[in-house]
Order: sequence, then C-alpha cells, then structure tokens
Amino acid sequence: MATEGPEIRRNAVTGHFSILAEGRARRPGAFDESRKRETYCPFCPGNEDMTPPEIWALGRDGGEPDTPGWKVRLIPNLFPALLPDLPGRGWRSGTMRGMPSRGFHEVIIHSPHHQRSFGELDTAQTGLLMEAYRRRFDQLARLDYIRQVMIVLNQGREAGASIEHPHSQIFALPVVPRAVREELRETRRYSGKGCLLCAQLREAEEDGRLVVGGGPCAAFTPYASRVTFETWFLPRRHEGDFRAASDGELAALGEVISQVIGALNGMVPDLPYNLFLHSSPCDGGEHGGYHWHLELIPRLIRGAGFEMGTGMYLNILDPANAAVQLRGAIEGEGG
Amino acid sequence: MATEGPEIRRNAVTGHFSILAEGRARRPGAFDESRKRETYCPFCPGNEDMTPPEIWALGRDGGEPDTPGWKVRLIPNLFPALLPDLPGRGWRSGTMRGMPSRGFHEVIIHSPHHQRSFGELDTAQTGLLMEAYRRRFDQLARLDYIRQVMIVLNQGREAGASIEHPHSQIFALPVVPRAVREELRETRRYSGKGCLLCAQLREAEEDGRLVVGGGPCAAFTPYASRVTFETWFLPRRHEGDFRAASDGELAALGEVISQVIGALNGMVPDLPYNLFLHSSPCDGGEHGGYHWHLELIPRLIRGAGFEMGTGMYLNILDPANAAVQLRGAIEGEGG
Repeated sequence: MATEGPEIRRNAVTGHFSILAEGRARRPGAFDESRKRETYCPFCPGNEDMTPPEIWALGRDGGEPDTPGWKVRLIPNLFPALLPDLPGRGWRSGTMRGMPSRGFHEVIIHSPHHQRSFGELDTAQTGLLMEAYRRRFDQLARLDYIRQVMIVLNQGREAGASIEHPHSQIFALPVVPRAVREELRETRRYSGKGCLLCAQLREAEEDGRLVVGGGPCAAFTPYASRVTFETWFLPRRHEGDFRAASDGELAALGEVISQVIGALNGMVPDLPYNLFLHSSPCDGGEHGGYHWHLELIPRLIRGAGFEMGTGMYLNILDPANAAVQLRGAIEGEGG
Repeated sequence: MATEGPEIRRNAVTGHFSILAEGRARRPGAFDESRKRETYCPFCPGNEDMTPPEIWALGRDGGEPDTPGWKVRLIPNLFPALLPDLPGRGWRSGTMRGMPSRGFHEVIIHSPHHQRSFGELDTAQTGLLMEAYRRRFDQLARLDYIRQVMIVLNQGREAGASIEHPHSQIFALPVVPRAVREELRETRRYSGKGCLLCAQLREAEEDGRLVVGGGPCAAFTPYASRVTFETWFLPRRHEGDFRAASDGELAALGEVISQVIGALNGMVPDLPYNLFLHSSPCDGGEHGGYHWHLELIPRLIRGAGFEMGTGMYLNILDPANAAVQLRGAIEGEGG
C-alpha cells in the first residue's frame, strides 16, 4: 500500500491532505530548534557545491552553472516533500486513502545577499525574483500530472524557515490543494456578480484598507484578516493565471511586496512571516472567475489550539487600522 | 456596521471566519514574546484576586469563592474573544459579512500546581479536570444562542499559551466552526457504512496505530496525521455529544491523555502542544453520526507557509512508527 517515497494521504474525518515525507526529518533544525546556526551558508555565493546542482540561475553573465555570479538561483530541495519519478497510483483500504507524492519541490534563492530580506532588495532584484517565480511556475505547470504550482516564502525561524538566507520554496503538486479549492468555490459562487477579488479590491479602497494602490499591482488588508497585518497583493487587471502576468505587473508586484515588508520590518524588526501565491490550477479546468494574488501572513502572534480546533482565526488589530499604520510606515520611508 | 465589542467576520474569498477582538492586544505577551516571565502567577493559589471572580471551582472543601483550597478553578478570560451581552445582529455590505462575537470565553485552571503539566497530574486530578470540562460544557451548551462549545488546551509559549500555569480555554460560540462542519460532512457521507470514528479506531488497531486501547477510552495516531505524534482520543462507546460521557469514560479519558502526554514529555521535555475537544454542535440539529473525540497536536515542527497556502500538511514521521514509539514510552513508564 505504501510507496518507496513521500505519500499524500487523506484524512477521512477532517478531509485534509497530509504529505508524509520521512526524509525531511533529516533537514537542518527539523527537530533541534535550539542548536547553533551554521557558520557557513549553503545558499551564499561560493558555496554552490553544498546544494544539489542548480536547475538554472538568472543574472549570471557567462560562467559555469554552480559557480558565483548569479542573481537568483533555482535548486532542488535537498529534503523534498515531492519527487518526480515516483511509480504507482493512488490506493485505498477502508477509510485510508493515499497516493504517491509525485511532483517537484524546489528552492529559489532570492539574491546572493545573506542578510538582505525582501524589504531590503532593490527593484531590479525584486523584479528578477518575480521573473524567476513566473518562469519556473510556467515550466512546472506544463507537466501533465501537475495540478497546482504553489510558491511559498517562509521568513524567519518562527515562520518555519530552516535556513536563514532568504529563499522561497516552489511546490508542484499532483492535486489542487484545499485552500485553492475553497477560493475557487467562493469565486465561482460570486461569479454572477463579477470577479470576487476585483470586488475585494474596490471594497478595500472604499473601506480604507488599501495599503498601496497606484500602479498595476495593489496591496490591501482583508476585511476578515486572519492575523494582524495580513496583507493581500494582486494585479488590478483581472487574470486568474499567474503565468499571464506581464513584465510590468511582475516589476510592480515585486516593488509593492517589498514596500509592505519593508514597512513591517520598520515597525517590528526581524518579523517572521509567510507569503504564498494563489494562482488558478493548471489542471486543464475552466477557472475564469479566479484572480491570482499573494497572501502575506505576519507571525506576530502564535496560532494556537483555537485556530486548529475551529478552523477559525483570532485577530487583535482592526484591518482598517493595520492599513493606516502600514501606509504611514511606507510614507515615512519615502516609499 | 461594527459593534462595540468583538466581531466575527467572514472572509468572502477563503470562506473562513475570523474573530476580531482588539481587547486581546493587551494580554500578556501578545506582542512582546521576549519579555521576562511574571514573577507572580495569577493562576496560583493565593493570587485569586488577580483574576476576574471565579464562576465556580471544584474540590474546595468549604471556604469562600476566590480563596485557596480549590482543585480546579473556572474563571472568565480577562481578554475575551466572545462576550455574552453584545447587542445587535449580523450585518452585510457588499462581500463584507459579520456578526457580534456573542458567547463566552473562559479559563479552566487545571490544578493548583504551577509546575505540573497534564502528564504529571494524578488520576484523581485528571478525572476532576475532565469533570470540569463536562460540567461547563453542559452549562454553556444549554444557552439558546450557543451553537458549539470548544475546549482548547495550549501548553507552552510555542503553542500559543500566554500564561505558564497549565490551563484550558473554553469557547462558547454562536456558530458551528468550519473544522467541526467539515468533520460532520465527512461522518454524514460515511454514515451508510456506520460510524466513521468507530471505523478509524478499528483500522488503527489493525494497522498498528493504536497507542492505548484497554479501557473505555482509546488513543491512536491517525493514518493521515497532520504533524509528528498527532494523537486522537475517543470513547469506545459510540456517542456524538461530550455531555453524555459517563463518569467512567471521563476518568479513563483523563488517564489516557495523561499517559500519552507523559510519554511525549519523556521523549521531548517541555514539548509544546495543542489539544482540543470536538463534540457535536449544540444547535438542535441531528448529528447522530458524530463521535466526540479530542485531537492532540504536538508542536515539534513549526507550521509554515505550505500549510497556510495549501490547507495541506507536511509530516515527517510515519504515524505507525509514532504509535510504536508512544507505546514503548508508556510501557517504559509502567503506564
């Protein structure tokens, strides 16, 4: 019943999917949160031989693969939750259901700079990083068994990062994950009235929850924010598929995210956070009502049993007030 | 549109509910995780005047309320996410929906002992604690506007506890929360074949995932565990409503939970964890297929962007292996 690699299992009672990837137990800090940071960094230039061979890199002007000179570098995750070559199909026994965790799990190193967080990168670099997102998203979404590409940024140990050097993870999944299915359901339900995300942006403007809004990409705090300073980013142009983002939208997106994170870091230095990209699935289905976006979840407060037990959230700052504070911090930095 | 107290808001895109309770920003450690622990403890005997007046206490042999001598003490939460006296009804404007967060948010102090975690309490005390759970659950579930009573235990700062002295929180909610609705949906779907939770327990026994199973309450690790050492507790007798638990079941439940937590603490001292109770809603509906249980979520690994972005989980230890380790640790302690 089990495969020789990571598995995706479905819990019959809660309906959630869980990837069982025992190999990840070996990753740095997986069990020992207290141990000292490495004196070396596998993601810094000059240490390219400490990672698996790169898939590609952006910005290297000549030079061999796996040598310094790159500006953004894409590598396989050393402790993958998904593997491309898994054999076999789904299985079922009683209420137990699973399938091979077939797909890709990779790392995008944001820049050569170990110390520079997203909010400290210049616009050329954030633009290049967004270009790397789109390029790899597009390559992985073309594979016939991939249903969803999910890009995730964990910043800080408290937010689940096991390596300090800023990086994102890219997961190419053989299933459409629950969080996306739920958003698809809600956008479909609303579709008689237009696009639900476009409506969110209009309402945020009217309600004082817009944080940045001048260019092709905007940022706002959701009416029902799950956590303090939760911020969503999206293009003003209605489009479900991240692959269709224009160069101008990507540049604006990188800049807006960097402004907001810079503002947050100004208020709370070294704030841990998670950021993830929601785009329409690449399963060949019709998802015309969807609108791609990113969701930023600052980790000021630790989520606790209430969140897991109820599936609800407990937030302590009015999102309209959060938007006021974020706008003030961005203006203060001349952003 | 807004009320003068906590609100429950619904996110139109993700469908989740979020309680906005700005008063909770004042609770200890809400923003400042690094500050020193209090030199006093408001939950220790002798400090009863540092909490709101108690609702009731168990085990006090004579003596006035809010004086020492209690064994389990129930108090209102000083920073409530729900309040009983909120006026008004739900509102809606565009895609923005909300309602007053009307209900109860209370604290059950597990024992007079500041240092004794659940795994270190004797069976008389764990039985008394379970009796306190059932008693307050029953009182709150009788109120006509309460749809769900949720009991949550956060142990350790990493798991969201803001006060060290072991305690549980009890939330009486005016809605059936998402996590319970999802379990109700799955149990209803399965109901033609019997009870889904009873089936889970049988399969766990066959699959080597039973941790404790001799008495009226059992513990097992779910096939699709979300996290390492996730453990579920349930009565062998099929029953959806926690209020119907017998005295014998409550005593067994307290003992089994204490055994498992003691075993976990033996492997990982000071392990942070969350524990929550899922019982059928008290909304007057027919939930015959449900089966009450508790879910224990150890926090060995920090949940990260993958979990929030996908609604999936990433686990690194086979639950069958987790059960072997837990059984070994329980036997080793003569439990």
